[in-house]
Amino acid sequence: MNYRMVFNLLGKVATVLAVLMIVPAILALCLGESCWWALAITVGISAVIGTVLILCIKPKTKVIFSKEGIVIVSLCWLYVSAIGALPFVISGAIPNYIDAFFEMCSGFSTTGATILTDVESMQYGLLFWRSFTHWIGGMGVIVFLLAFDSGSADRSMHILRAEMPGPTVDKIVPRARNTAQILYLLYIGMTVLETLLLVSAGMPLFDSVVHAFGTAGTGGFGIKADSIASYNAACQWIIAVFMILFGVNFNLYYLIIIGKLRSAFRSRELWLYGGVITVSSALVAISIANQFTFTQGAEATARHAVFQVASFISTTGYTTVPSSTSINAFPLLSKGVLFLLMFIGGCAGSTGGGLKVSRVAILGCAVRRELRRVLHPRNANAVKFEGKIVSDETLHSVTNYFGLYMLITAVTFIMLCFDSGEGLTVESNITAAVSCINNIGPAYGVAAGGYYMYNWFSKLILSFAMLIGRLEIYPILLLFAPATWRKS
Amino acid sequence: MNYRMVFNLLGKVATVLAVLMIVPAILALCLGESCWWALAITVGISAVIGTVLILCIKPKTKVIFSKEGIVIVSLCWLYVSAIGALPFVISGAIPNYIDAFFEMCSGFSTTGATILTDVESMQYGLLFWRSFTHWIGGMGVIVFLLAFDSGSADRSMHILRAEMPGPTVDKIVPRARNTAQILYLLYIGMTVLETLLLVSAGMPLFDSVVHAFGTAGTGGFGIKADSIASYNAACQWIIAVFMILFGVNFNLYYLIIIGKLRSAFRSRELWLYGGVITVSSALVAISIANQFTFTQGAEATARHAVFQVASFISTTGYTTVPSSTSINAFPLLSKGVLFLLMFIGGCAGSTGGGLKVSRVAILGCAVRRELRRVLHPRNANAVKFEGKIVSDETLHSVTNYFGLYMLITAVTFIMLCFDSGEGLTVESNITAAVSCINNIGPAYGVAAGGYYMYNWFSKLILSFAMLIGRLEIYPILLLFAPATWRKS
Repeated sequence: MNYRMVFNLLGKVATVLAVLMIVPAILALCLGESCWWALAITVGISAVIGTVLILCIKPKTKVIFSKEGIVIVSLCWLYVSAIGALPFVISGAIPNYIDAFFEMCSGFSTTGATILTDVESMQYGLLFWRSFTHWIGGMGVIVFLLAFDSGSADRSMHILRAEMPGPTVDKIVPRARNTAQILYLLYIGMTVLETLLLVSAGMPLFDSVVHAFGTAGTGGFGIKADSIASYNAACQWIIAVFMILFGVNFNLYYLIIIGKLRSAFRSRELWLYGGVITVSSALVAISIANQFTFTQGAEATARHAVFQVASFISTTGYTTVPSSTSINAFPLLSKGVLFLLMFIGGCAGSTGGGLKVSRVAILGCAVRRELRRVLHPRNANAVKFEGKIVSDETLHSVTNYFGLYMLITAVTFIMLCFDSGEGLTVESNITAAVSCINNIGPAYGVAAGGYYMYNWFSKLILSFAMLIGRLEIYPILLLFAPATWRKS
Repeated sequence: MNYRMVFNLLGKVATVLAVLMIVPAILALCLGESCWWALAITVGISAVIGTVLILCIKPKTKVIFSKEGIVIVSLCWLYVSAIGALPFVISGAIPNYIDAFFEMCSGFSTTGATILTDVESMQYGLLFWRSFTHWIGGMGVIVFLLAFDSGSADRSMHILRAEMPGPTVDKIVPRARNTAQILYLLYIGMTVLETLLLVSAGMPLFDSVVHAFGTAGTGGFGIKADSIASYNAACQWIIAVFMILFGVNFNLYYLIIIGKLRSAFRSRELWLYGGVITVSSALVAISIANQFTFTQGAEATARHAVFQVASFISTTGYTTVPSSTSINAFPLLSKGVLFLLMFIGGCAGSTGGGLKVSRVAILGCAVRRELRRVLHPRNANAVKFEGKIVSDETLHSVTNYFGLYMLITAVTFIMLCFDSGEGLTVESNITAAVSCINNIGPAYGVAAGGYYMYNWFSKLILSFAMLIGRLEIYPILLLFAPATWRKS
């Protein structure tokens, strides 16, 4: 293990965190909010940690392997969540550290699950930071480092691979660093575009920025008790469309920008993603039509159906259902469809969580091949996806990933069952586990988005589940495996 | 497709069904019950169908391949469920045919889910037939044919493989026919032993036979509204132990009988099975201790914990919880543990359903290897189970099977969500789907064992789900695949 390189990079991440947190600190100062000093103190702490690590630990060699990539990524994500929680505790907004840690794991992992019972009473500086973590976590904190720090670029594919979602990671351009830059520029561009559209549709500027962060990272933190329900129809449509857009593989946007429209629209994953959204929206629309006062009329029904489907498949977690009704009151068919969408998630290479559309598709192909094999044991057929033959290695890593994924879900579920908190049920624990692992946020059975019902142990379990989900299991899990720390 | 051979074998199965149904018919006649003629008519119908098929369709060649094996098995299971349902409809005990078909799919697949709301009012002849289907379905209707019909033994491994549970099917002895005979003799012996023990513990003879059938097939049909709750502690212990025993690979019993005790007890699957039972029982015991009047005292707590765990892991579905309390009132931890046990199921080569312990173990090994591969991408490690290296083929077929299995569960779940019946929830639909696919029976959220709440469409879906689960997915699924019927 190249410890020096690991700690050096961790130092850089600490510095980046300090720099990023200056933004909400300044905002709070301008608004005259008391939380500015809590943010400022944390900026100081992270800056000191970062500087000490960078200056004191100089790597002898920059060569890193898969193992180091995994350790760096998991340590960095734990670091940002642990330190990012400090302003909430210091300012007293979330007095309990574990609650704040949960909130930050939820933020950086772009889950959007919250333990807050009264989000509207929180100061703007903290609300901004809370949503900003979605935006940072969406594309990845180390991808950010790779993009904008010239010293970290050697052999960085190992890091990119550990942090980027999807079964395979394609480099858009030959150099990992340029790939990271292109991805971040696209990300910034789309976030700015959404903000402008929301402002022009009548949403206040602060709200627009915060919701653009939440959409871009497919996170789901809002600033109202009613999530998106109290904004006008135009704002709801804009957010719905952008949730879908941020669930698409960013490589396709690059292809579109450089004029390769045809290859972008040939993506099988894109069509599957679109198909699932269409069918699911139709089912939800049929089942909720005219059931509630807020779904009266064709436009309203369509909007609420598409919004909820977009929110669940992109793993964002926003909702247009007023908290007085709550998604728990939805008809069974809608709840069933949304539950299954939780597992699918966005496309590979997007900011969405879940299994990813391409993994589900490859899994489907593997299953079909197995059926054919049972029928004709001697014929071996290749599995094709996106016009290419899927290598056996990818195929098996997808099926193994799925096994591990279900195992983690089962373990998370059973750990939650040790919690004897009032109001918790098999349903609430299943949906909470699935929701956190897939980085969605809301769960059925627990009060609208209310994870405050769980005890501190369950909250810790769910915090790790969220990070495990965001980093696609391996990094966090291997951090605790003895084999990672053994000398090879 | 060797159609002649398929229909010839189907004719034999029809005859076997007629012969087996004579037993309850005679019982009903002796008891002077009106249902005797409903059973007798069905015996006649199946005998005629069988004779016509056997006499009119003579196979030109007895050679069958994997494909024919699959078609034979699935057609036979559909046939016995469809015809086995007739006595209930003819006698008027279950007026609706789909309800009766559900009950028979549940019987033959050894699930034990029931649509009956008042089982105690049913005549003994029908109750006997209902439980007898568990016993027939447990070891397999075609294995029965193979064992006792000398003409069906050519290339019969394809059939054995399609009907026997587990990732790989070992022949105990070189000839498939002798294997089938040994299995059935062991099965009969253990059933008789359980009956004798139950009688000596004070259970009436009829009740003992019926519950021995239900235990042997790991089915779960009883004859009381309270399942096993109203019998004495000794009877409950006997049934608990036999549920565990019938969840063990029958090959091990053969090894014990021929004196190879050491190799029997070296079975890793057996130890895992025992380990899971021990840990789960402890967790359930801790959580239910002194919560209910019927769990007061150490013996009662242990008995109820072990019984419920044995019932769920062996996928039997009996319960010692009085229906006035119902398992829905169990503490969350118990419900969570029992829910996960549903997926694991018994050992390969037992009458238990579920994924099977060995599949879960192999899945675990595959996942561990994947973790190691992520850490050291260039090192390939072999997966070992039961002291042997697991071939890549078996490994992939297990992981693919798991993917397919979860897919089927998801599809069953969403189909149930179309049912707008009162009282149905996400929880009831998840547990009903899982319970039926894994051949357990009870589900949370629906009234104790009460599948009567579902509409006819849901009942059909669940009926197929039960058969799919019992035959380990492929046969029933491939019956509806165009590729099966295409000329190769």
